[in-house]
Amino acid sequence: MDELDKDCLFCKIIRGEVPSYTVFENEDVKAFLDLSQVNPGHTLMVPKKHLINLFSYSAEDAQRFLKYIPKIANAIKQADPQITGMNISTNNGASANQMVMHSHVHFIPRFEGDGLKIITRNNEAEYDDTKYQKIADAIKNQL
Amino acid sequence: MDELDKDCLFCKIIRGEVPSYTVFENEDVKAFLDLSQVNPGHTLMVPKKHLINLFSYSAEDAQRFLKYIPKIANAIKQADPQITGMNISTNNGASANQMVMHSHVHFIPRFEGDGLKIITRNNEAEYDDTKYQKIADAIKNQL
Repeated sequence: MDELDKDCLFCKIIRGEVPSYTVFENEDVKAFLDLSQVNPGHTLMVPKKHLINLFSYSAEDAQRFLKYIPKIANAIKQADPQITGMNISTNNGASANQMVMHSHVHFIPRFEGDGLKIITRNNEAEYDDTKYQKIADAIKNQL
Repeated sequence: MDELDKDCLFCKIIRGEVPSYTVFENEDVKAFLDLSQVNPGHTLMVPKKHLINLFSYSAEDAQRFLKYIPKIANAIKQADPQITGMNISTNNGASANQMVMHSHVHFIPRFEGDGLKIITRNNEAEYDDTKYQKIADAIKNQL
């Protein structure tokens, strides 16, 4: 097994030192209920390796851990016929509201009329071709 | 190339029929700016295959397309030193606010004090062990 962190909550859950409502587990990942249950079925998937967040993933980590997302999403959806959609998200860094510093994917089932709001706003009026292109070029230069 | 859809906006962007501010492209995925720019650097990554959302991914699709997420996230972050975090998310299904019915990953850079709010609420007080276990078992039975 990859190295885990002694004091990390999710590493403790992976080792079984802290109990969880586990829904899936294999050699790579563990998935368990988020106790806050933003909506019923709200699940977290964590890699069995102490990676802080997606910024910390090597190409090998990315290949190994992220492929389980559709499988877990479909199982959550199939478990409750009232689920019509799902927000699947990762918060990376404290400024993005990451609370536990071990990479985790949120699966938040959606129900008609549940009243949840996702991040959205349209700033298109503040942009022109030059401004878009400058941002795109800056990113492209890192790839 | 995999089959694309004639009328899908993102398939048109993949084929180059609709222009985009492209930041990355290879045989599997294309990444380009979201014109709404929720925050500067807001990028979308789409598979070069007309998959509706993550529920539509085969195991092979999951292996092929999702591994690029950390690479693109890091490039966006490195392009702007003021970026301290990132919300990386997919909205799957109309009830989850999916607007274009071709699977896409949002990369929303975060800046200190940008005022964005993610989905959150704590329903823990409404749950007991029995209720959690029932939900976890229903999901586990699908895996």
